[in-house]
Amino acid sequence: MGILVQKFGGTSLSTDEARRYVLGHISRERQRQLDLVVVVSAMGRKGEPYATDTLLSLIHEHGDNLPPRERDMLLGCGEMISATVLCSILRSNSIPAVALTGGGAGIITDSQFGRARILEIRTEAIHKALQEGQVVIVTGFQGVTETGELTTLGRGGSDTSATALGAALRAERIDIYTDVNGILTADPRIVKDARPLSVVGYAEICNMARQGAKVIHPRAVEIAQQARIPLRVRSTFSEEEGTLVTDSLDAEQAAIVRDRYVTGVAHVSGVTQITVHAQDGHSDMQLHVFQAMAHHHISVDFINVNPGGAVYTVFDADADQAVAVLNEIGYYPKAVSGCAKISVIGGGMNGVPGIMARIVEALTEEGIPILQSADSNTTIWVLVREAFMAKALQALHAKFSLHQ
Amino acid sequence: MGILVQKFGGTSLSTDEARRYVLGHISRERQRQLDLVVVVSAMGRKGEPYATDTLLSLIHEHGDNLPPRERDMLLGCGEMISATVLCSILRSNSIPAVALTGGGAGIITDSQFGRARILEIRTEAIHKALQEGQVVIVTGFQGVTETGELTTLGRGGSDTSATALGAALRAERIDIYTDVNGILTADPRIVKDARPLSVVGYAEICNMARQGAKVIHPRAVEIAQQARIPLRVRSTFSEEEGTLVTDSLDAEQAAIVRDRYVTGVAHVSGVTQITVHAQDGHSDMQLHVFQAMAHHHISVDFINVNPGGAVYTVFDADADQAVAVLNEIGYYPKAVSGCAKISVIGGGMNGVPGIMARIVEALTEEGIPILQSADSNTTIWVLVREAFMAKALQALHAKFSLHQ
Repeated sequence: MGILVQKFGGTSLSTDEARRYVLGHISRERQRQLDLVVVVSAMGRKGEPYATDTLLSLIHEHGDNLPPRERDMLLGCGEMISATVLCSILRSNSIPAVALTGGGAGIITDSQFGRARILEIRTEAIHKALQEGQVVIVTGFQGVTETGELTTLGRGGSDTSATALGAALRAERIDIYTDVNGILTADPRIVKDARPLSVVGYAEICNMARQGAKVIHPRAVEIAQQARIPLRVRSTFSEEEGTLVTDSLDAEQAAIVRDRYVTGVAHVSGVTQITVHAQDGHSDMQLHVFQAMAHHHISVDFINVNPGGAVYTVFDADADQAVAVLNEIGYYPKAVSGCAKISVIGGGMNGVPGIMARIVEALTEEGIPILQSADSNTTIWVLVREAFMAKALQALHAKFSLHQ
Repeated sequence: MGILVQKFGGTSLSTDEARRYVLGHISRERQRQLDLVVVVSAMGRKGEPYATDTLLSLIHEHGDNLPPRERDMLLGCGEMISATVLCSILRSNSIPAVALTGGGAGIITDSQFGRARILEIRTEAIHKALQEGQVVIVTGFQGVTETGELTTLGRGGSDTSATALGAALRAERIDIYTDVNGILTADPRIVKDARPLSVVGYAEICNMARQGAKVIHPRAVEIAQQARIPLRVRSTFSEEEGTLVTDSLDAEQAAIVRDRYVTGVAHVSGVTQITVHAQDGHSDMQLHVFQAMAHHHISVDFINVNPGGAVYTVFDADADQAVAVLNEIGYYPKAVSGCAKISVIGGGMNGVPGIMARIVEALTEEGIPILQSADSNTTIWVLVREAFMAKALQALHAKFSLHQ
C-alpha cells in the first residue's frame, strides 16, 4: 500500500470550518487505501494563543534573550498542541490515529537550534504505526538531536518536514495544503486573472518561491526533487486538486508544459538599487564594495558588475546603512529606493528566442522604464520602480497569455 | 555549595506581580550562595491559555478520546512554556539560566502515560549547568521514558518533581511556593483565626494533605521524608518563610512541637454515610458489599465494620450508584448524604490520654452529633453533617488553642 504525506499549515486547524475540511481530506485519501502520514504546523495566525508568533511574544516582552535551545523548546509546543488536537479530532471521527513529535517520528537533526538540519530519519516508529492501520500525525518544523533535545528547523520548516518524511518513506506523493488554490501564475491581489497552474516543474516552483511567491519553501521542493516524489500544492478549503509539481509528466501534462514558455510572474518589492562607479586609482572597487557589504551583513541581490562599476540591490531597510558603509570607504553611490524586482519564470524558455524581446515590448507599451535586467535559463528578471510594479505584472501576464 | 530546589506553582507566573515575586525569591537565594534548581508548573489558572485545564479543553470538545501518550504530549507543553518564559525573565534580569524538560533534566519514568512513576534521575545535565553558574529551570510534572517519550506524573506532580529532584541532588532544602502562607491550622475561609504553623513533621503534613488540606501532594512529602530533606511550604507573594516540614528539629522547634498535641484540623465535605445491616443468611455480607463497591469502581472511606453490619462513606456523587448496587445484591442500606469528615491531626497526640474526650466535649458543647469516628496514632476523624462542619471546625480549633 502506498504512503501519502499530507501537510497542513497553520490556518488549517484554527477554525471549525477548516478542521472539517482537514477531516475530509484525510478521510478521502484513506478511502483510496493510502497509508497517511500527516504533518502539522502550529495552529492559527498571529494573535491566536498557540501560533508560533504568539509563543514568541511570551518572551519578547522580556527582551527576547532566550538562548536558541530554550527558544526551540518553547516553539516546539505549538506543533505538539496542533498534532494532539488533530489526533483527538480524527479519533472522535473513528479514524485511528497517533501523534508523534519530530523526535518520536525519528527525525534526527544536528544541534543548530533554531535552524537545525535533518541528518537522518529513522522511520521504524512511523512504519510500525502505519502497519497497525493508524494515521500517523507528526509535528512539523521540529526534530531532535542525538542527545534528545528538541530542535526546530527554522521558519517554513514544516514543508521541509513533510518532504523529508516523504523522501525517507518513499511516499507516492506529498500534498501541501495551504490557503491558496495551488501555485498561481501571479499574485491574484495584483493580477486579477491569475489562475492556478495544473502542473509545474520542481525548478520552476523553486524559482517562484525564491522570487517572492510564498507558497512553499524552496528547500522543501529540492528534497522532493532529489527523491523524485511528486508534490501537490492545494487548498485546505476546497476539493480542487491544485498544482502538481513533478518532472515526470504524462502525455497530457507534457503537452501543457511543452506549449508553455512562461509559467508565471513573481515579484519582490521594497528594494533599493545601488549604482557605484569605478573611480581612478580604485582598481579593486568591486572587491571593496562587496567585502564591505558582507562585513556589515547587508544582503545583496541582482548584481551586475562591469568595468565601469557595479549595480546591485539591497532591501530598502538596509539602504541607508549600505550608502554609509560605501561612503566610509570612499565611494559615493547613487541609490534609488522603492524599486521592485519582477521575475518572469518558465522552465520552457530555455533556448527559445524572443522571450526578452516580448518582455521589453510589454513594458515599453506601458511606458515602464527597465532599470536593470538579468536572466538565467529559466527566469528573466527586470527591476522597475515600485509605482509601476502592478502595471508591469499585469502587462507581462497578458503578454504571455498566462490567464488562459 | 548547597543546592536549593524551588518549586513555583501555576499562579506564580501568570501575572507581572507574581513574576516580580518569583524573581525576588530566586535573587535572594542566589545571594545566599545556593545553587538553584527551579521546578515550574504550567502557567495560570483555568481559563488562561497555557494552563493545564485549558490545554485539556482543546481536546475535550472532541470527546476526550486522546490516548494517554498523546495526552501527555499535549499537557507537557504547559510546563515547557512556563519554563522557557521564566528562563527569559531571569536572563533579562542578568541571572544566567537554562531551561530543561523533564527528560532533559534526566527524569526517567516508566511508560504509564498520565500517571508515570519516576524510575531514576540522571543528574549529570543539572550538575553540569549548576557548575557553569546557571539557575537550572526544570519543567515540573513530566519525565521521559527510556525510549524518549514524554510522560506526565499525574496531577499535583510538580511537587513530586521537586522533591524527587531534591532527593536525587541531595538538596539542602526544597521550597514549595504556593498561594498560601504555609501550612495553616485550619482552612482560613472557615476558621478565621487559623494561622500558619512554623514547623511540622512529614507525617502530619501527609495526613493533612490526605484529609483535605490541598497544600502539597502527599507523595511528594513522602519522597522528602525518605531522603530526610526539609521542605518549606511558603507563599510566592510574601517574604515570610511559611512552614518548615522536617523531623530534624533544633531545640526551639522541638519545644514548639513537644508542647503541641494537635497540629491542625482539616475537612472533606460532600460525602455520604452508608450503613448496611447484617441480615440472616448473609454471612458474607461485608465481603459482598466491598466487592460490589470495588467492582463498580466506587471509592470507599471511613470504614467501620462490626458483627452487626458495616458503615462507610462514599462521595455524594457516587451515593445513588452505591445504593443501587447494594439493592441489586439484596442489601437495603441507609444512606445519609451531605456529611463532612473532620480530621484532628497531631503527631504529638500518640499516647496522650484525653484527646478524644476533648473532641467529644467540643462537639457536644455545640450540640453537634458525631455520626461516626475513627482514629490512628496521629489523627482522629469524626463524621458530622455538613451543616455543622464550620461550627465543628471552629470549636475544635478553639478547644485545642490552635490560634495561639
